[in-house]
Amino acid sequence: MTRAAASLVLVLVALSSTFAKYVPKTGKRIPQSLSRGWGDQLIWAQTYEEGLYWSRSRNKPLMVLFHLEDCPHSQALKKVFADNTELQRTLDEDFVILNLMYETTDKHLSPDGQYVPRIIFVDPSMTVRADIVGRYSNRMYAYEPNDVKLLLDNMKKAKKLLKSEL
Amino acid sequence: MTRAAASLVLVLVALSSTFAKYVPKTGKRIPQSLSRGWGDQLIWAQTYEEGLYWSRSRNKPLMVLFHLEDCPHSQALKKVFADNTELQRTLDEDFVILNLMYETTDKHLSPDGQYVPRIIFVDPSMTVRADIVGRYSNRMYAYEPNDVKLLLDNMKKAKKLLKSEL
Repeated sequence: MTRAAASLVLVLVALSSTFAKYVPKTGKRIPQSLSRGWGDQLIWAQTYEEGLYWSRSRNKPLMVLFHLEDCPHSQALKKVFADNTELQRTLDEDFVILNLMYETTDKHLSPDGQYVPRIIFVDPSMTVRADIVGRYSNRMYAYEPNDVKLLLDNMKKAKKLLKSEL
Repeated sequence: MTRAAASLVLVLVALSSTFAKYVPKTGKRIPQSLSRGWGDQLIWAQTYEEGLYWSRSRNKPLMVLFHLEDCPHSQALKKVFADNTELQRTLDEDFVILNLMYETTDKHLSPDGQYVPRIIFVDPSMTVRADIVGRYSNRMYAYEPNDVKLLLDNMKKAKKLLKSEL
């Protein structure tokens, strides 16, 4: 290799390290998704404030879904939830949706305590629908994989907005 | 085709439509990312509550970045921000990070108003570092693409935690 070619290589190496995209020491990561596997084709709100805003402005009920990545009950529900076409379509067309792994500061979102998985509906009037419950008296907002039909029924209840009931 | 084969086809079609993953009427979407292009290799907090929790528990400063997808100033800053290897590495190793498109209910995050792009640092003691500002007196927490060096200097300031200054 000539001296000129060697210089060129050095310059190219220097340039490439300057403009190289950052890669963590531990190796390249898969970018985080907002859906976290609960429906990759759905449009998720990022925060509760954002969810409330969308719910009001679109006049659609908000579903808030609390879960944890290392909770086997959450993971089991997630699989059924993501695979159910009717549920996914209804959420996409008629709901504003938010999934959270950290509790908010709003105590209304934990009517009977903080646990996962837990699904709370909020009316566009910003009223938490504490009346829409699952089948477990000790964890009223919990759902198991077998409860998807009940969840679909509860979604129908949430779609009957409070204002129209007045 | 025999009657048996025709029945089999019908059953398969019925099965595939039952188990088909949901696809929106408007066509398949690209799943939303938490980074929104500000650093796909970084680990982003989803909400302010989550960011504060990580900041306290890891004793690292939190950077909160307000932006909008349809704001050209945000988009111009994003490009420089995502491409700067030093900035991305420092954020990954020494910061907790959060990008938001909707304002939170915490007024401390808008010391001189709500505008984008806006970058606010929060100390692990949960004190908003209103003292760490950019170069524009009318929008003290705004940065332009040319201000990346200043932003890096401000990140160094944020890394000097308030507790150690007492």
